[in-house]
Amino acid sequence: MRAVIVEAPGDVDVLTLGEADTPTPGPGEVLVRTVASGVNRADILQRQGHYPPPPGVTDIIGLEASGVVERVGEGVERWKEGDEVVALLSGGGYAEFFVAPEGQLIPPPPGVDLVSAAGVLEVAATVLSNLRVGNLAHGEVFLVHGGAGGIGTFATQYAKALGAVVAATAGSEDKLRHCREHGADFAFDYHGDWVSALKEATGGADVILDIIGAKYLEANVKALKKRGRMVVIGLQGGVKGTLNLGLLLSKQATISATSLRFRPAAEKAEICAAVEAQVWPMLGDGRIRLSPETRIAFDDVRAAHELLSGGSNVGKIVLVH
Amino acid sequence: MRAVIVEAPGDVDVLTLGEADTPTPGPGEVLVRTVASGVNRADILQRQGHYPPPPGVTDIIGLEASGVVERVGEGVERWKEGDEVVALLSGGGYAEFFVAPEGQLIPPPPGVDLVSAAGVLEVAATVLSNLRVGNLAHGEVFLVHGGAGGIGTFATQYAKALGAVVAATAGSEDKLRHCREHGADFAFDYHGDWVSALKEATGGADVILDIIGAKYLEANVKALKKRGRMVVIGLQGGVKGTLNLGLLLSKQATISATSLRFRPAAEKAEICAAVEAQVWPMLGDGRIRLSPETRIAFDDVRAAHELLSGGSNVGKIVLVH
Ligand SMILES: NC(=O)c1ccc[n+]([C@@H]2O[C@H](COP(=O)([O-])OP(=O)(O)OC[C@H]3O[C@@H](n4cnc5c(N)ncnc54)[C@H](OP(=O)(O)O)[C@@H]3O)[C@@H](O)[C@H]2O)c1
Ligand SMILES: NC(=O)c1ccc[n+]([C@@H]2O[C@H](COP(=O)([O-])OP(=O)(O)OC[C@H]3O[C@@H](n4cnc5c(N)ncnc54)[C@H](OP(=O)(O)O)[C@@H]3O)[C@@H](O)[C@H]2O)c1
Repeated sequence: MRAVIVEAPGDVDVLTLGEADTPTPGPGEVLVRTVASGVNRADILQRQGHYPPPPGVTDIIGLEASGVVERVGEGVERWKEGDEVVALLSGGGYAEFFVAPEGQLIPPPPGVDLVSAAGVLEVAATVLSNLRVGNLAHGEVFLVHGGAGGIGTFATQYAKALGAVVAATAGSEDKLRHCREHGADFAFDYHGDWVSALKEATGGADVILDIIGAKYLEANVKALKKRGRMVVIGLQGGVKGTLNLGLLLSKQATISATSLRFRPAAEKAEICAAVEAQVWPMLGDGRIRLSPETRIAFDDVRAAHELLSGGSNVGKIVLVH
Repeated sequence: MRAVIVEAPGDVDVLTLGEADTPTPGPGEVLVRTVASGVNRADILQRQGHYPPPPGVTDIIGLEASGVVERVGEGVERWKEGDEVVALLSGGGYAEFFVAPEGQLIPPPPGVDLVSAAGVLEVAATVLSNLRVGNLAHGEVFLVHGGAGGIGTFATQYAKALGAVVAATAGSEDKLRHCREHGADFAFDYHGDWVSALKEATGGADVILDIIGAKYLEANVKALKKRGRMVVIGLQGGVKGTLNLGLLLSKQATISATSLRFRPAAEKAEICAAVEAQVWPMLGDGRIRLSPETRIAFDDVRAAHELLSGGSNVGKIVLVH
């Protein structure tokens, strides 16, 4: 099969189109012919050698994809040849075929074609699973950083649908407007004093979904309410930060850090089922709207990585096969 | 009534015996004549002005005490005059009488006299509630720092009773032996590389109960297993530490910081009920053994604080009225 090959970590040039063995579906697994592959920030890190796949997972990049079932392994019950699916993967999405455990496949969201659908599941599963870690409840204040980004746009809408008061940060007037248009009750410029602004507007956050890491650690703890919970899923602002444990203790607060990719298969399956049951209906009735994705031909995978690194792209990028 | 008065924060000399108004039990509250008052590290911090009581709570020091019910307020169902009780307090224990919500009173543990019982509930409630925060399960590895201290000795035995593998740190051969004698499967000198020793012996900790804070933050995160949970309840080693969020993320780990004193009354009542139901039977059948307490006359409160600050005392200190 055709697949994106990376001989050694590096720049976009290390991405080359080549041949790889078509994987064989083991018991409980499904072989899918790819229609489109979602492109994620983690893919760039993996290309650069900073984010190796979990043990036992293919070297081929790609955390999500859509396609049509080609063949099912022993004991697979839900799927048969010809079914349309989207997949949450630990790797292998950048190829003509991929294999996934049957629980990590769900139908595309209602009314969304297979190409657009390739870029939805990773974000949906990340947001749903982490707002569970944070235990976000109806009426609570939720803060998401990068509210105009992929995770942020989705998290804003999902948290609103759960009945939260939503605050988001962003870096420009345009992006702040984007946050409000997607339902944020408050949008704060992250170049200013967003901690004070948040506290004044809401009293502080019950739950923070953080993609910045070290750089925001102190500010995030300040921004938490009593019993607040902060969930770190990205480290765009560095790895090692200062933690004021005295402040954390006086707030009885909690910091968790999680990654969807490294969860065990059983949990991924459970998360996919929850996405299908809870998030897909929200896409169906418009409570969550998808930003239009940028479609790039599979052969132009280098251009896709360049576009994502450049930072000018809005919305998801998908590689069309 | 007689009570310990602190006119201004300071050294032990600011502790003076004086007169205060006997409190009146409001609805749902109970007035208790004190038999003995437990002395805790937090009392020293409060005396020094570093740990003010929560809003609405008396200025009189004292987080736990035992005594005999003198009078009950409106609507109190469980208690009547003459009942023997131990109390978890937000303040007020260093006095001839104290008032507590009825849910923060439980009977003394089976076979423990009222004087010894004055020093048990604060530790028991702290350990039980925080191992719940850490969600310690049967068969998991539990690490407690200061395994020969008040919290540590209790936590070691309680975690063993829950079926955990227990590791403890301590600072001398004597104290390490104390840890083993109270059931620790592993005891590590904290002057050495306890992180490596723990990992070699057990693979790492599922749950850490930490009383050191900043100084151990990096080491504790290293010592955690995947999905580990660390609960910080003391800051003996400082407030601001370095947190490696990358490591936390790769482990999918969680850090919580909590304080028993600042929990709402309803939670304290629930914790007291759990202590009575789960911990008291363990004291009854010897799964948890109390170290002999040091008894000091109420009038010698200064000596009690000096003894605790000095650090040479082993076991609890109680003030006898
Ligand atoms: N742990 C997991 O399971 C998991 C899963 C998926 C994604 N992630 C991580 O989540 C992060 C976001 O992914 P994404 O797909 O949403 O990326 P994205 O669409 O490129 O968004 C990045 C966002 O970061 C914002 N940002 C940059 N600097 C900021 C600052 N100083 N303060 C606040 N926001 C700032 C940007 O806001 P402006 O555009 O307004 O500047 C932008 O919205 C990435 O780090 C990714 O690796 C983690
Ligand atoms: N948040 C809450 O709700 C709550 C409630 C109760 C207590 N606490 C806190 O818990 C802490 C312990 O209380 P306690 O009553 O158990 O005090 P304690 O009996 O005086 O014990 C203190 C312990 O700290 C240990 N220690 C000192 N330096 C250490 C180091 N570098 N590494 C490891 N251990 C070290 C000592 O070990 P060695 O004797 O072997 O040196 C000793 O066992 C205090 O800070 C207290 O304020 C918090």
